[in-house]
Amino acid sequence: MNEKKIHLPEINKTINVANSKDSLLDLLAKEEIIIYSPCGGKGTCGKCKIRVKGSVNDITNEEKNFLTEDELENDIRLACRTFITGYADVYLLEGKLRNDSKSSLETLKEYKVNNKVIKKYIKIHKPTLENNNSVVECINNSLKDVHIDLDMLRKISKDIDYSKNVTITLYDNELIDMEYEDTRDKNYGVAIDIGTTTVACYLMDLNNGKQIKVSSTQNPQAVYGADVISRINYCLENEEGVEVLSKKVKKGIDELIKELSVKANIDKRHIYQCVLVGNTTMNHLFIGLNPKSLSAMPFNPVIKDVVIEKASRIGINSINSHGKIVFLSNIGGFVGSDTVGAIISADLTHDVDNSLIIDLGTNGEIVLSTPKGRYACSTAAGPAFEGAKIKNGMQAFSGAINSVIIEDDMHYTTIDNQPAKGICGSGLIDIISEFIRIGIITEDGKIVEPHVLNNEKLSKRIIKNGRKKEVIIAYDNETYNRQIITITQKDVRELQLAKGAIKAGINILLKVAEVKFQNIDRILLAGAFGNYINKESARRIGVFPNVELDKIISLGNAAGEGAKLALCNKEILDISRREYSLATKHIEISTHPDFQDEFVSGMYFK
Amino acid sequence: MNEKKIHLPEINKTINVANSKDSLLDLLAKEEIIIYSPCGGKGTCGKCKIRVKGSVNDITNEEKNFLTEDELENDIRLACRTFITGYADVYLLEGKLRNDSKSSLETLKEYKVNNKVIKKYIKIHKPTLENNNSVVECINNSLKDVHIDLDMLRKISKDIDYSKNVTITLYDNELIDMEYEDTRDKNYGVAIDIGTTTVACYLMDLNNGKQIKVSSTQNPQAVYGADVISRINYCLENEEGVEVLSKKVKKGIDELIKELSVKANIDKRHIYQCVLVGNTTMNHLFIGLNPKSLSAMPFNPVIKDVVIEKASRIGINSINSHGKIVFLSNIGGFVGSDTVGAIISADLTHDVDNSLIIDLGTNGEIVLSTPKGRYACSTAAGPAFEGAKIKNGMQAFSGAINSVIIEDDMHYTTIDNQPAKGICGSGLIDIISEFIRIGIITEDGKIVEPHVLNNEKLSKRIIKNGRKKEVIIAYDNETYNRQIITITQKDVRELQLAKGAIKAGINILLKVAEVKFQNIDRILLAGAFGNYINKESARRIGVFPNVELDKIISLGNAAGEGAKLALCNKEILDISRREYSLATKHIEISTHPDFQDEFVSGMYFK
Repeated sequence: MNEKKIHLPEINKTINVANSKDSLLDLLAKEEIIIYSPCGGKGTCGKCKIRVKGSVNDITNEEKNFLTEDELENDIRLACRTFITGYADVYLLEGKLRNDSKSSLETLKEYKVNNKVIKKYIKIHKPTLENNNSVVECINNSLKDVHIDLDMLRKISKDIDYSKNVTITLYDNELIDMEYEDTRDKNYGVAIDIGTTTVACYLMDLNNGKQIKVSSTQNPQAVYGADVISRINYCLENEEGVEVLSKKVKKGIDELIKELSVKANIDKRHIYQCVLVGNTTMNHLFIGLNPKSLSAMPFNPVIKDVVIEKASRIGINSINSHGKIVFLSNIGGFVGSDTVGAIISADLTHDVDNSLIIDLGTNGEIVLSTPKGRYACSTAAGPAFEGAKIKNGMQAFSGAINSVIIEDDMHYTTIDNQPAKGICGSGLIDIISEFIRIGIITEDGKIVEPHVLNNEKLSKRIIKNGRKKEVIIAYDNETYNRQIITITQKDVRELQLAKGAIKAGINILLKVAEVKFQNIDRILLAGAFGNYINKESARRIGVFPNVELDKIISLGNAAGEGAKLALCNKEILDISRREYSLATKHIEISTHPDFQDEFVSGMYFK
Repeated sequence: MNEKKIHLPEINKTINVANSKDSLLDLLAKEEIIIYSPCGGKGTCGKCKIRVKGSVNDITNEEKNFLTEDELENDIRLACRTFITGYADVYLLEGKLRNDSKSSLETLKEYKVNNKVIKKYIKIHKPTLENNNSVVECINNSLKDVHIDLDMLRKISKDIDYSKNVTITLYDNELIDMEYEDTRDKNYGVAIDIGTTTVACYLMDLNNGKQIKVSSTQNPQAVYGADVISRINYCLENEEGVEVLSKKVKKGIDELIKELSVKANIDKRHIYQCVLVGNTTMNHLFIGLNPKSLSAMPFNPVIKDVVIEKASRIGINSINSHGKIVFLSNIGGFVGSDTVGAIISADLTHDVDNSLIIDLGTNGEIVLSTPKGRYACSTAAGPAFEGAKIKNGMQAFSGAINSVIIEDDMHYTTIDNQPAKGICGSGLIDIISEFIRIGIITEDGKIVEPHVLNNEKLSKRIIKNGRKKEVIIAYDNETYNRQIITITQKDVRELQLAKGAIKAGINILLKVAEVKFQNIDRILLAGAFGNYINKESARRIGVFPNVELDKIISLGNAAGEGAKLALCNKEILDISRREYSLATKHIEISTHPDFQDEFVSGMYFK
C-alpha cells in the first residue's frame, strides 16, 4: 500500500493522509484549509477547483460537466471529487481559499477543556407522600441548586420518569436537557467568527477540545453591502433592515452548522453552545440591535457586555433549542469581540509584558497590553492595506504582485506565478519600503525626479501622467491585460494616510499607557493580512515601531481562535466578560490633544 | 336634586350613588357585586337581569327585546340599562351573582402600596467620545444597575433619544418600558383568581392601591370538565391537552383584562403586573405544566415556587408585553396558591396566635398557624358541603333551603323566598345541627325511630323509603316541583364523611403542631361557603373545634384578596415566595398513624 501524502507548495505544508477515505475537500478542511464549495461537496456546483499533480483518482463524470478541456489539461480538478491514492502536490487556486483558513494553518491545536456544559448520568430521587417534593425539588435534591426555565420544566413535567437513569445536561447551573439514555460522550459546541466578508464555523468536541470540522461561507449580509457602513445604512433606511440582516446571517450560520452536523454525523440536540466573535456591527446585527448609534458621533455601541441567550430565543435552530448562544463582548463601537478574541488568543489576559496587537484593515484595531493595564483603540486606516483606492490595487488573488525587491531593476513575484494583474497589500508595502531604501521617494513621500537616481533602468520607470509622477512596477509586456502596472503619487499618499492613522493610534496608546516604544516586548499581528506581510518592509515604512524583527509575530485568525478557546474553557469565557470595561480601556484617539500631530508626523518615512 | 341610593335587602347593604352616571351594572361592579353580563354591558345579551323597585329610568327598547311581559310586571330589568334616579331596592336574582363577589363585599378596601413597579421621569446621560459609553452603560449611569432584556434592548437601540426626558418603568431592577412623555400617573396591575369554576380579575391602580374595576367569567376550561380531576384526565388523554387548556384560560383572562381596560379607559401598555392565585391544578394548567404528577400517588406538584415570567413569554397579551406575570407559590399538590392567598389575606405571616384557616370544599384545605410554625394539609371532604351527592342537594341558587330551625315543627328559609327546590350546603349544616339538638339523629348519625320523639309533627316527618329512613324537610305542597324534599340516612352519612375528613385534618395538624384545640385563637373561614354558613350549626355538628363563636371569622374571598395584597405590596409578594416550603410545612395527613382513628371518630356527633 502506497504512502498517501499531500504537499501544498504554496504554503510549504505536507499533510499525511493515512487511510482516510475523505475527499481532498474534506482532507483540506480538517487542516482548516477551506475551499469555497457552496454545494457542500456534493459535486453539483463545480466551484471547488484546485490544481493537483500526483497520484489521485481518475477524472469523474461530474468533473467533466464543470471543467473545460483547457482546465483538464492543466490538472485542474474539483476538490470534492478528488481522492488521494499516493503522493500529490496540491495548488490552491485564486479566490478559492478563504483568508481565514490560510492564516490559521499554523494554529491548529487541541484546546484545553474546562466545560461550562456538564453532562451527568444519574437517577433522580423520587417524591414521596412524606416529603411532598415537587418535581423541581426532586431534581434539585439530586443535582443541587439547578435552575430550570419554564420551557424546560414544561417538557420535564410531561416526560419525568423516576425509574430510569437519565443524562442531564447543565450549562453552568441551568438544566438544559434530560435524556433517558447515556449520552455523556456527545457534547459539542461551535465557535463562530462572523467577519464582514466571511462567516466561519468550527465544530468542536467539548469533551476533549478537538476541532471536528470547519465550514465557512460568504457572509450572506454581503448582498446588502460589502462593508459595515453600507449595512448600517441599510438598517437606517429600511424599517425592517435590522431584522432582515439579522435573519440573513443567522440563516447562514444555521446552514453551516447543519452542514457540519451532517458531515460529522452529530445530532443537533447534542450541540449545546455557540461562542461568537465579530466586529461591533456584526455583533449588533446578529443580536438584532439597531446599529444607529454606530453611525454617528460618538459612535458608541448599544451594548458592550457579553450576550448569553437561549438558542431558541435568539433564533439559532441548528443546535439544541435550550443551548446557549454566547456573543463575546465589545470594547467600543469599532473595537469588537473579534479584538477580544485576539486578546484571548494572544493570552494577554495573563500577560506581564508590553504587547501590541495590531489588526490592519479598513478599520485598524490596536491593543496595547501592559502590566499596568490594557488599552484599545480603532483608527480609520482606510482600505489601502487591502489594495483598495490604489490605482492598480487588487485583493490577494492569483496574479497579484505580492512581493517586490529592487536590485539593479525592479523584481517582483505574483501569486500563482501568473502574469501580473495588480498589486495586493503585501506587495504595496514591499514597494514603498524599497522606494524608501533606494530613494525613489523622499522622506515626505514625494516621488523624486528620474535623474536623481543613478540607475537608468529605474529612472526609466519614473514617468509622468499629466502633471503627476508614476513609477512603473510591471511593463505592459509582462502583465495579464498588456497594460502597465504603476504606483502613483496618489497611491503613495493613500499609504501614508493609512500608516499615519495606525502610527498615531499606536503612539497615543503608548502615551496613555506611559510606555516607550523601545519597551514593547511583542508586536502581534492579527487578521489574515498579518500572515502575508513582509515584516521588515512594514517596519521600514513605519507601520510598526522600530523593534527587532523576531518580536513581530503573526497571530493567524486570532478572532476565531479566541472564540474556540472561550467555547472550550469557561474560565476564558468568564475572563472575556470583563474584557470590555474592567480590563481593557477604550481610548478615543481622535480627541487626544496629540492626535493631529501624531497623525501628520506618522505619515513621514523616517 | 334627589339623593340617589341603592339598597340591597338580601345582603342588607346600602350604596350611596352620588352623581354617578354609571349604569346599575357598573355601580354594583364597583362594590364587587358582579352581575353576569357576557356582552360587557352593551345591552345585547339580555343576561344581566335583576329586580329593581324604586326611582329608576323608564324601560328601554333594548330591555323590551329581552324581558317578558311577566318579567316587566315583576320589576325585572337589565342592570346595564338601568340608571338610578333616587332611592331604589335592588334584588340580585338566581345565578346572576358570582359567589366570589358576594363574599368580598365586606372586604372592599384600599391596599397599602409598596410597588415592585416603579416609574421615574428622567433624562439619560449622553454618551461622549471620551466615555465611549454603550447605550446600556448610559442607562445604567442614569439609573444604577438596571437589567435590560434583549427584546427591550432591541427596542431601545432604535428609539433612544438623549435630548428628551423619558419615563422609565422598572420592575425590581429590570427596565420594562421607556416612554418619551411623562406617564408616571399611569401604573396599573391586575390581581387574578383562577377558580376551577370562575375566573375573576381585579384591575388595581398601583399608584394608590385602589381597586378600579372587577370582571369575572366562567373558567373557559369548564367545557373540558367541571372539576380538577376531569381536566387533569383530559391532559393525560390528549397529547395537546395541556396546551389547549392553558390557552383557553389565558384567552379568557385576556378578554377579561381587555374588558377592564376598555371600561377604565386604560392603555394596556400601562398594565405592568398580574398576580395570580389558584389551586395547584389551575396553576399548572395556566403555566403550561403537565399535571400528570398530580394524578397519581404521591400527588406531588411539578413546581412549588412562585413563577415570574414576562407577559409575552407566558402568552398574556392584554398587558404590557414586558410586564410580569406572577403566579404565587403552591404548598402541595392539593394545597395551592389560593391557600397562600388566604394566608396572606389573614396576615398569618406576622401572626403570633394559633390560627386555623379552613376552606370547605370538595377538597378541603386547612392551615394551622402557630408561633412555632405553620402547617397545611388538604383533605378529601367530598362535595357534600356544596350540596352534591345529597339526594335533594343543590347549589346556593334561588329556591335553595339555606337555613333551618326546628321549634314545634320544621321552619326553613329559601334563597329569594322562592318555593323550595332543594337544600344547599348551609341549609344542610343547619338541618344536621338541629337534628342533633332535637335528637332526630343519634350521636353516631342514625335517624331515630319516629316514636322516640315526643312531638307528633316531627315524628310524622320521619318516613321509610324501602328499608331506609328519611326526614321530610319540605312537604310536596310547599315545593317548586310538588315533590317532598328530604334528608336521607345516606345524606347524613355523606355529611359525616365530609366532616370526618375535615376534623381529621384539623386534629392531625393540631397534633403535629402540638397545639390543643382549646388554645386556638381564631378560626378563619376562607372561600365563598364561609360567608353563608351558620357558624353555630357548623360548630355543633363538629366541623370546627368547639371554640367561642366570636373566634370564628369569615375571610371572604381570601384567595383573591391575597393576590391583590401581593400585587400592591412587594414585601407581601416576597413573603409569599417563602410560603411554600420555608414557612409552611405541608403535612400529608393520610400517612399519619392517627389518621384512620381521627377520621372515624371525627364522624361522630359528640
